[in-house]
Amino acid sequence: MPKLIAFSGGIGGSKLVQGLAALVDPRDLLVVANTGDDFEHLGLHVSPDIDTVIYTITGRVNPSTGWGIAGETWSFMKMLATLGGPTWFNLGDGDLALHVLRSYRLRAGESLTAIVEDYCRSLGVPFRLLPMTDDPVRTMVETDEGVLAMQNYFVERRCEPRVLAVRYAGAAVAQPNAALLAALCDPALEGLILCPSNPFLSIGPILAVPGLRDRMAESKVPVVAVSPIVAGQALKGPTAKMMFELGLEVSAAAVAQLYHGVVTDFVLDRQDESQQDTIRALGMRTCIAETVMRDSETRIELARTVLRVIGASS
Amino acid sequence: MPKLIAFSGGIGGSKLVQGLAALVDPRDLLVVANTGDDFEHLGLHVSPDIDTVIYTITGRVNPSTGWGIAGETWSFMKMLATLGGPTWFNLGDGDLALHVLRSYRLRAGESLTAIVEDYCRSLGVPFRLLPMTDDPVRTMVETDEGVLAMQNYFVERRCEPRVLAVRYAGAAVAQPNAALLAALCDPALEGLILCPSNPFLSIGPILAVPGLRDRMAESKVPVVAVSPIVAGQALKGPTAKMMFELGLEVSAAAVAQLYHGVVTDFVLDRQDESQQDTIRALGMRTCIAETVMRDSETRIELARTVLRVIGASS
Repeated sequence: MPKLIAFSGGIGGSKLVQGLAALVDPRDLLVVANTGDDFEHLGLHVSPDIDTVIYTITGRVNPSTGWGIAGETWSFMKMLATLGGPTWFNLGDGDLALHVLRSYRLRAGESLTAIVEDYCRSLGVPFRLLPMTDDPVRTMVETDEGVLAMQNYFVERRCEPRVLAVRYAGAAVAQPNAALLAALCDPALEGLILCPSNPFLSIGPILAVPGLRDRMAESKVPVVAVSPIVAGQALKGPTAKMMFELGLEVSAAAVAQLYHGVVTDFVLDRQDESQQDTIRALGMRTCIAETVMRDSETRIELARTVLRVIGASS
Repeated sequence: MPKLIAFSGGIGGSKLVQGLAALVDPRDLLVVANTGDDFEHLGLHVSPDIDTVIYTITGRVNPSTGWGIAGETWSFMKMLATLGGPTWFNLGDGDLALHVLRSYRLRAGESLTAIVEDYCRSLGVPFRLLPMTDDPVRTMVETDEGVLAMQNYFVERRCEPRVLAVRYAGAAVAQPNAALLAALCDPALEGLILCPSNPFLSIGPILAVPGLRDRMAESKVPVVAVSPIVAGQALKGPTAKMMFELGLEVSAAAVAQLYHGVVTDFVLDRQDESQQDTIRALGMRTCIAETVMRDSETRIELARTVLRVIGASS
């Protein structure tokens, strides 16, 4: 059974996961990906976060975007545009194979877990990667333009509408991934890691799956979160903008507040050192680190810090 | 309403259709494509003959294969192979857009006719192109290896199994395309053309749709067929092999026999001149022509012959 479970969204989470994978025996690492931004597009089941983890870990990811495949071709999108089909969501030609085969196998009754397991084996992901649940959970963003499904908000509307609230449709009746539950209960477990992903769009859906938040809160092992906010800004994506629109302070401390009761150890950037007291007041230990993952070395360095935090407090 | 209706399979039929399109006002031409080799692959609805007509007519077709798109990319198939998915049927990246969008729209309840109409408009097909029916008809090949769906016989098994019989699953309850029925009844109609396509796999499914064979037989206008067999050989595909295995003579005359009662005028190659008497004995007029369509000029020349036959006998 894995000693470490990392909970991840897409781009930012994948980077820390890559760092972790470089340091620990892959059998000791379980990665749980958010599926709240999965969606059906043109009848295809797209799992953005799972695929970003896979592409990142196997060295296939397009480094300039952080998602999709490096050297991808785009013949499908060109023809789709000629046909007058929807072009707001980019599907690369190679990437399409994952969506088409996944959709086909899901319709045939297979679980997302089984499909992801096969993909990981075929593509060379060394550790176990699980969707947080096999049930449909869909992150819905309530905005000043109405309720938008996650990808419509994120990709089609480029995060422009003002966010009023975020909710997770289907979460209340979703079953957490059984293999995740087993790993959470296992005595071999040494630590849980919330990757520096968007707390509303990536970690939020995971915590909304019934039982997961409670089990993390009741866990006897360290639960380490890495702040996705550095110096009042998000490194990637709309986290800062959403926090502001939701009336929160845009700070590492405000992220810590969102994880209150769950997280035991909070890793924040050196630039936010002054927030340590506020975070400690929430009952968390803090750790200062370089959290900006510019390259492979900084990913590994941050992962090493996270492992040290777990080792020190477990 | 169209003056001419051409019934076509894939590669051979498309070539004659291209010749016809070069000579007649596109409003006067209706092309009806076989859908007996349509199939579901990886959850995608593939319409090989319709797409081959579209690609050929719009100058997109891969000239070295006769199907698919020239300059196509193959990233999807490469990744599908990496994932361990089925690779016996090649889906080009651009080509995939037609299948994905078609499948999506069919699942949403649209008719194949409406989708093909949109595709023709988007891609620049100048005449009207109709599927023979919007209902599922699936050509099944009974072989010494068991019953094979058309594409499994044709592509996966490369026409190697010995053919015992061909049947058209679903044909008995299929409704012919309503727009085709209307065109067949219209007084503007001047002629029907059976393109030089496989009589079992391309024209056979069309004739099996209830009412179509009878309406052609009862038509007052010339029904012209062009032989797909020249000098005892098929120019493309398994027609000759299938005729042999089904116990038929591999000849233009034997094809004419298959169309007995439907066709009024039979166009055969100069090399088969000696079969004219046999064909005339079936009650058909005959016309000798160069039927091998090597290039654009020979396509137009053969189309001109077909139009002359219709003009002369109408």
